[in-house]
Amino acid sequence: MVAPTHAVPDLMEIRRAVDSVLVEFLAAKSLSAPAQLREPIKALRGFLFVGGKRIRPVMCVCGWYAAQGRGTPEPVLQAAASLDLFHTFALIHDDVMDDSDTRRGRRSVHVALADRHRSRKGPQGPDRFGINAAILLGDLALSWSDELLHTADLAPVQRRAAHVVVDAMRTEVMFGQYLDLLGTGIPSGDIARALTVSRFKTAKCTVERPLHLGGALAGCGTAVLDACTAYALPPGEAFQLRDDLLGGFGDPTATGKPSTDDFRDGKCTVLMALAVVRANPAQRRLLRALVGRPDLTEEQADSVRAVLEATGARCAVERMIARRCRRAMKALDHAPFPEAAIDVLRQLAHAASVRTS
Amino acid sequence: MVAPTHAVPDLMEIRRAVDSVLVEFLAAKSLSAPAQLREPIKALRGFLFVGGKRIRPVMCVCGWYAAQGRGTPEPVLQAAASLDLFHTFALIHDDVMDDSDTRRGRRSVHVALADRHRSRKGPQGPDRFGINAAILLGDLALSWSDELLHTADLAPVQRRAAHVVVDAMRTEVMFGQYLDLLGTGIPSGDIARALTVSRFKTAKCTVERPLHLGGALAGCGTAVLDACTAYALPPGEAFQLRDDLLGGFGDPTATGKPSTDDFRDGKCTVLMALAVVRANPAQRRLLRALVGRPDLTEEQADSVRAVLEATGARCAVERMIARRCRRAMKALDHAPFPEAAIDVLRQLAHAASVRTS
Repeated sequence: MVAPTHAVPDLMEIRRAVDSVLVEFLAAKSLSAPAQLREPIKALRGFLFVGGKRIRPVMCVCGWYAAQGRGTPEPVLQAAASLDLFHTFALIHDDVMDDSDTRRGRRSVHVALADRHRSRKGPQGPDRFGINAAILLGDLALSWSDELLHTADLAPVQRRAAHVVVDAMRTEVMFGQYLDLLGTGIPSGDIARALTVSRFKTAKCTVERPLHLGGALAGCGTAVLDACTAYALPPGEAFQLRDDLLGGFGDPTATGKPSTDDFRDGKCTVLMALAVVRANPAQRRLLRALVGRPDLTEEQADSVRAVLEATGARCAVERMIARRCRRAMKALDHAPFPEAAIDVLRQLAHAASVRTS
Repeated sequence: MVAPTHAVPDLMEIRRAVDSVLVEFLAAKSLSAPAQLREPIKALRGFLFVGGKRIRPVMCVCGWYAAQGRGTPEPVLQAAASLDLFHTFALIHDDVMDDSDTRRGRRSVHVALADRHRSRKGPQGPDRFGINAAILLGDLALSWSDELLHTADLAPVQRRAAHVVVDAMRTEVMFGQYLDLLGTGIPSGDIARALTVSRFKTAKCTVERPLHLGGALAGCGTAVLDACTAYALPPGEAFQLRDDLLGGFGDPTATGKPSTDDFRDGKCTVLMALAVVRANPAQRRLLRALVGRPDLTEEQADSVRAVLEATGARCAVERMIARRCRRAMKALDHAPFPEAAIDVLRQLAHAASVRTS
């Protein structure tokens, strides 16, 4: 138990409690695993504990408090922690699909595993091995996120409600990811589509569904779930919009990933879609010629950035973020949540929109 | 309900009942999915319904009967069907990792999805798209196998027992797959390791764990579970040993995959390990030079086959299969199962060892 009172515990305290659930779960897995599996399990633990912000578990616990949950029972923490194993699965596979070498300032999982087997011979050399091992490690994280959830000591009614939320979340994330794959490659001016991808791939699974999970565990009704949604989608979208800006303009030492990757991959972000729509013919030609080039240079990336500035796309995204932040705050004015939960959700909405990493 | 009596229903009847659970589940998913997801869901359904033998669901239902279960209640069928969605996930990711173009006589999922997007432009061309979409579709199948299991209308005690079995199975399969990845590339004489891979990757999840799942659903004790294991591992291993023989010597029109893939990938099968151990220096040089060559020709594959014959490795594997088949039959002599269940398990052990596809 983190806090026995009705008050929302300190966010750091929630993070620590979630960390200890994850540490214990992975330690048990490592103990019972055959020796050869310890290396990938160690890679998984390393990934989970470097730079993981625990946003999703924290949101889940906030949902629990928003729905009048009291204290922070172990089963709720365990369900909350399962969200970060799911998130880990999604990031590992995402990096494989995007061929991203860096994540959180370190080598991504498939690169780290390839490097450990650098002397490997045969048709599947170290790089192929790294990718295959990462696919498998993602599969393991997905299975284990599920195991962590269904082994939580929940009442049957809590368990059923939790699974409804988590099942929906998993399908949504995979849908968002698929839509992203379909669109990636050529800069497009389809703003609505870019927003749909960001909503499914990020907004729902980062804020809305974790809140719903906490609410469902507390046995809340549709009024609370709807109020969670009204609050959650704006900062969830703001989170992704900020991610797009950081992806293009962020400081790599703070974000932990190169600020050229999104351009190189031809990611169809809202930022890019806005630029395509607002571009004059010369600017549009430049975007079409450069965005999605695997060999994009740093100088070419600067010309892309200049277009994102000159078209006003960057400022427009900043405005969208601010608008979403205000919308979230407004939703809280009428939310049927305890005051303490509202205070924390205000802080979190603000943090999601101004973060630098 | 398939059969209201104590008798084991006809295997075809079980297969049909499992098929209808899967058809209904995927139809509901397709109906509720956004239009863009219907294409991959269709690919998943196509894969599930071409050549799927439903061995795992059938074994699960047999486990239910072996543990004195009566009739075939819908929740048992649903849990049984979830095993085939799990199997589908494993095959889709397996084909991506092995870079296999064919499965069950058709294009594998990543190749089929690449072909549908052949006109795709950008840094992620059609082949990369196919691989990424298949990784995602595997993830979806894994999530949905879990959803099918936990939405089955089971009593809490059944549900908990079922999850213990399925959690163990998932970790075992991924362990086997990882061990396989570690070993692939260079022919090795490590027979024990090849047997461990086959046990974890195939034997346990094809026969033992499905039987355990059925037994657990019927509330059986450890005596029945142990008898299931004693019966299950030999035909499970025989199944994989037959697979290795079919992989090297099978008729591609019957197996649905080229009989050079295993040699080309440098798969460390028991068949290959036996050949390496028994080979004279010249034969060993030939194996080292050819096995694991991505550009292996049909003629070179024939020389590898000749070594597998000349060393007696092929015959030795045939003997291992026969021995395992006898061992399974013997285990049934003392098994505390109803007579009808024993009859069916005898048929299945025989079928696993003599199959040609």
